[in-house]
Amino acid sequence: MHKVTFLPAERNVEVEDGKSVIAAARKAGIHINASCGGSGLCGKCRIILETGELAGGRSEKLSDEDFDKGIRQACLAAVTSDVTIRIPTESQLAKGGLTTEVPVRNQARLHIFHVESLKSEGVFIPPVEKIVMALPAPSATDNMADAGRIIQGLNNQYDERRIIVTLQTLRKIRSALRERDFLVTVTLARPVNERGKAMVVDIQPGNWSHRNYGIAIDIGTTTIYGNLLDLLSGKVLACKGEYNGQISYGEDVISRIVYAEKPEGLDQMHDLMMNTINSIIRHLLQKAAVERDEISSITLSGNTTMTHFLLGLEPHNIRRSPYVPVSTFFPPVRATDLDLDLAPHAVALVYPSISSYVGGDIIAGVMGAGIYRSETLTLYVDIGTNAEIVIGNREWLVCAACSAGPAFEGGGITHGMRAAEGAIEDFGINPVTCEPMNITMGNKAPVGICGSGLLILVATLFEYEIIDSGGKFNRNIDTPRIREGRSGYEYVLAWKEEAGGDEDIVINEVDIENFTRAKAAIYAGIKTLIEVVGLQVTDIEQIILAGAFGSYIDIDSAVTVGLLPEVDPSKILYIGNGSLLGSWMSELSNHIRRDVVEVVRKMTSFELSEVNDFKDQYVASLFLPHTDMSLFPSVNQRLAAIRKNMRRT
Amino acid sequence: MHKVTFLPAERNVEVEDGKSVIAAARKAGIHINASCGGSGLCGKCRIILETGELAGGRSEKLSDEDFDKGIRQACLAAVTSDVTIRIPTESQLAKGGLTTEVPVRNQARLHIFHVESLKSEGVFIPPVEKIVMALPAPSATDNMADAGRIIQGLNNQYDERRIIVTLQTLRKIRSALRERDFLVTVTLARPVNERGKAMVVDIQPGNWSHRNYGIAIDIGTTTIYGNLLDLLSGKVLACKGEYNGQISYGEDVISRIVYAEKPEGLDQMHDLMMNTINSIIRHLLQKAAVERDEISSITLSGNTTMTHFLLGLEPHNIRRSPYVPVSTFFPPVRATDLDLDLAPHAVALVYPSISSYVGGDIIAGVMGAGIYRSETLTLYVDIGTNAEIVIGNREWLVCAACSAGPAFEGGGITHGMRAAEGAIEDFGINPVTCEPMNITMGNKAPVGICGSGLLILVATLFEYEIIDSGGKFNRNIDTPRIREGRSGYEYVLAWKEEAGGDEDIVINEVDIENFTRAKAAIYAGIKTLIEVVGLQVTDIEQIILAGAFGSYIDIDSAVTVGLLPEVDPSKILYIGNGSLLGSWMSELSNHIRRDVVEVVRKMTSFELSEVNDFKDQYVASLFLPHTDMSLFPSVNQRLAAIRKNMRRT
Repeated sequence: MHKVTFLPAERNVEVEDGKSVIAAARKAGIHINASCGGSGLCGKCRIILETGELAGGRSEKLSDEDFDKGIRQACLAAVTSDVTIRIPTESQLAKGGLTTEVPVRNQARLHIFHVESLKSEGVFIPPVEKIVMALPAPSATDNMADAGRIIQGLNNQYDERRIIVTLQTLRKIRSALRERDFLVTVTLARPVNERGKAMVVDIQPGNWSHRNYGIAIDIGTTTIYGNLLDLLSGKVLACKGEYNGQISYGEDVISRIVYAEKPEGLDQMHDLMMNTINSIIRHLLQKAAVERDEISSITLSGNTTMTHFLLGLEPHNIRRSPYVPVSTFFPPVRATDLDLDLAPHAVALVYPSISSYVGGDIIAGVMGAGIYRSETLTLYVDIGTNAEIVIGNREWLVCAACSAGPAFEGGGITHGMRAAEGAIEDFGINPVTCEPMNITMGNKAPVGICGSGLLILVATLFEYEIIDSGGKFNRNIDTPRIREGRSGYEYVLAWKEEAGGDEDIVINEVDIENFTRAKAAIYAGIKTLIEVVGLQVTDIEQIILAGAFGSYIDIDSAVTVGLLPEVDPSKILYIGNGSLLGSWMSELSNHIRRDVVEVVRKMTSFELSEVNDFKDQYVASLFLPHTDMSLFPSVNQRLAAIRKNMRRT
Repeated sequence: MHKVTFLPAERNVEVEDGKSVIAAARKAGIHINASCGGSGLCGKCRIILETGELAGGRSEKLSDEDFDKGIRQACLAAVTSDVTIRIPTESQLAKGGLTTEVPVRNQARLHIFHVESLKSEGVFIPPVEKIVMALPAPSATDNMADAGRIIQGLNNQYDERRIIVTLQTLRKIRSALRERDFLVTVTLARPVNERGKAMVVDIQPGNWSHRNYGIAIDIGTTTIYGNLLDLLSGKVLACKGEYNGQISYGEDVISRIVYAEKPEGLDQMHDLMMNTINSIIRHLLQKAAVERDEISSITLSGNTTMTHFLLGLEPHNIRRSPYVPVSTFFPPVRATDLDLDLAPHAVALVYPSISSYVGGDIIAGVMGAGIYRSETLTLYVDIGTNAEIVIGNREWLVCAACSAGPAFEGGGITHGMRAAEGAIEDFGINPVTCEPMNITMGNKAPVGICGSGLLILVATLFEYEIIDSGGKFNRNIDTPRIREGRSGYEYVLAWKEEAGGDEDIVINEVDIENFTRAKAAIYAGIKTLIEVVGLQVTDIEQIILAGAFGSYIDIDSAVTVGLLPEVDPSKILYIGNGSLLGSWMSELSNHIRRDVVEVVRKMTSFELSEVNDFKDQYVASLFLPHTDMSLFPSVNQRLAAIRKNMRRT
């Protein structure tokens, strides 16, 4: 960590080695004009290095003379020591002499899951194990069958009992045993059910016990994510996200179901999904340098509709009252039975669901976040195309789902995108000039806005009264950045020449309306569910947020726009993609696979549409932050503080 | 039953209604010349009906005049009342005035398995059941998933617990439930293991509980047999046998294994076998008017090599010391995983084996014959290409195998064939004229000799000194029926014009040598195994013979040629195809499927080639009946009685 001092504000901040100066400034609450997201293209983010060392910080936009004076481009300069940096007038917030507070980020950083905790709890037991055995060669006095020899070895050397050898393995066993003189590695798949049998699903000649891999997949309606896991260390070796190939058949589950009801429609939906998943698997294998046949286990989680498409189940009644899915529990199957492009021995586990609208993704989140094992009364919110809400602890669990729409995943937003390189994930604005400070993932030229960026963007526009509580732009601001576009008024985040694409990156009023609807549905869902179980917001001891936002979520922004109720920010944890985390945990711990049945049985599901209050709550939430400002007292204070000294010319 | 009196011998016999006169004569020990096996072609079997009624009995060989005189063709005439029949001189044994005793058959008739005994023991529990349920339709207050509804129905209506619904079923469940207003039939597959779960493997709209079928298959090296079973009544609805399609790649398992070791050889062997089995299945379905998808369960048994080919397992080490098979236990698999042409939901169970040369066929026989449940000390002999021998009772079981060659299945015999229409299954001879009395299956023109016919044929030729104890023809008999053929001397059973094919049906000295080797191997095996466990022939309380001989086996012939040790004929039971019987029983009783594991564990296998005595026993048995005639005192007496008055001109 290095200390960065910004002048003239004299504000200090600690940042990790290698962090960009612009990110450090954002963290310190210092505004620096920066449109190009850190790609060096706009050349606006000039700062002066007064003491210490910075790495890089220079593009062709900077002359030798300026460089020698200590001038650097903040977006290209990496902090490599304690430094003092002066923000020159033209880069400062307060052009024209104004000093305005920039809010310091109150970030719920991605809570990184530690394998060590599983290990210390003694539950790091992956569902498949590679067991190496040196077995005696057969002789006239010991001419037991090859399979019997394997089972005897597992009995004697590893005290493994109750074992089945699969047909696939039987077909390889003779050659495998004799290729390396009866030294073999067997792949043992442990039963999910304690009364079940362990299965020898594969056999390899020689010792391969050092290579054991699994895959975790989250099937989102919009995006599918995968992790390739080293089942020995528990580490993620590669991760990959791709848009769900079904997306051109409709953005929400209902339109997908409608399509699936056509002749061949279900097969088509299944195939499109499998194409995406198989493409992700190919990428993961390549990235991690793992062979296809080395994957012995895969866990998949998704909402109930996605799970139906995955398994080839007819989803018709999911969209028809009384909303009956085909099944909520699914037997372990061969990966190839799902058309997954994996070896025939690979076992696939699909997360169970609760109901048509509380799916395996949310159960996976509950398992991954460990709510069901904790005494802390937790509100769990998974923000995606459908938002799911769980409240409870290890004693009880209730859940509900609400349709948020795809705004947080970049859907229905003109330049929306998922959290990937070039996505604007943080944002600041000069309230006078309206010049942006775009911080992008990977310091690339901006190509769009991801969910976490959108949240901050809307909150910031609202904080500085660039939009009003109805989401409409202030028509009186004189800046080329605010203009009338094809979908009403819009704000230009990056001009075409600064951007990673071939057009200006904007956010318009329709985008903001879509965002507002999404956040309103989620807030209304949270509030309704809390009240349904007779609690109040203040009873919640912890909020766990999930969703594919990127590396963090800004809590103040979430509260400012009225997405989350006002709670102590320290109570809020962000776990990223909860569904993926759950699948990942299931790949590392058979205990979690077993516990899931209990969790599903324990959870009570509420149909929000049947709770009278919900509709009213939703309508009241269609403002920033809410029609009832008394619910957001600290937002009132915050807005007042920001706006106090702000005068726009 | 009708009483048939034969004149002039004044011998009576009771036969079933519809039995042919020639078969009645054979039973009574009366010889009637008959070459054509009952097809009416030779016209030699003329008899005179003196009292009573016969049905049929006439071909174009018989003039109106003769018919009016009461003359009938014995092979075409069916007994339909009590009758008196005179054998005219030209049809009689004693042409030339000789009267010679024809031995009365001491038949071990096919012991028909009775489903009722399973029912009375309370173990008639087929592995799959069709369960019909009328379920409540979902509603807002009961919107459980479709699969949950099925499981709840099984819980509440049938007290079935611990149930898995397969992926295949899940894919059909929604439509099936709604097609007949929530009246459905589920196919429940019961676990072999008591700790296992029952699986809902299929679902059909409406009530189909009256149709539940299974298939039992015996995979012989030479012939494959199948039974289609009604799992409600336990009845066999159709049966079918076909030569194993692998037969052109070698008659014994060793040559098949050698072939399978070539590139693609194993796949080819598997495919040839599956072609035969699938052809049998097609025939069975057609005969029984059952749809392919109505078969939910299939059990298959065969020797270890056949089982390996069935499952696609490498058989290489079966033929190499120390003779190690890939596996002796096989998990239940989907029928389609074995390339069986059945529905995806059909479950296949493959009989376990003991070792490389004591296979699932013998275990199936032990299970089918119920030896393992009986107190009676039993010698079980399964006569096929490989002969297997089991001795024991419910306390202990030992077994051994010996290579008999395919003679008893018709292999290596010039006109050998399996027990099917046109096979000579019984035989008599006029010792003077050497004219045959051929009785064929289905009263068809003879096309060959089946195992049971061969046994009687060789025994009869030996009894009448047409061949000597070394199997060589008496060159001094002056008859066109004995002649020198391409393979040494031969006896003509039927001239081309009387036969069902386009050549004379013969048996030659090479055939007899092959037969003698086969019976010697079996006898030596029996004697060695009895002695290995410290017993004597007289300790055996029961002999159960198995093998695809046809409807019976002639005990006296079996002892005369030295195939079986001399025991009280009442102690001998014939169960036909023991392997098929075992598979069949397994289709009717899940208890038997469970017990089989215990039986396999209990059985001790002996390698006859490692018992010093075996080779000597074998060489000593290469005569009719044996070099040591003291072992066959009653055969001595029998031969003496037959030959006493016989004078050949």
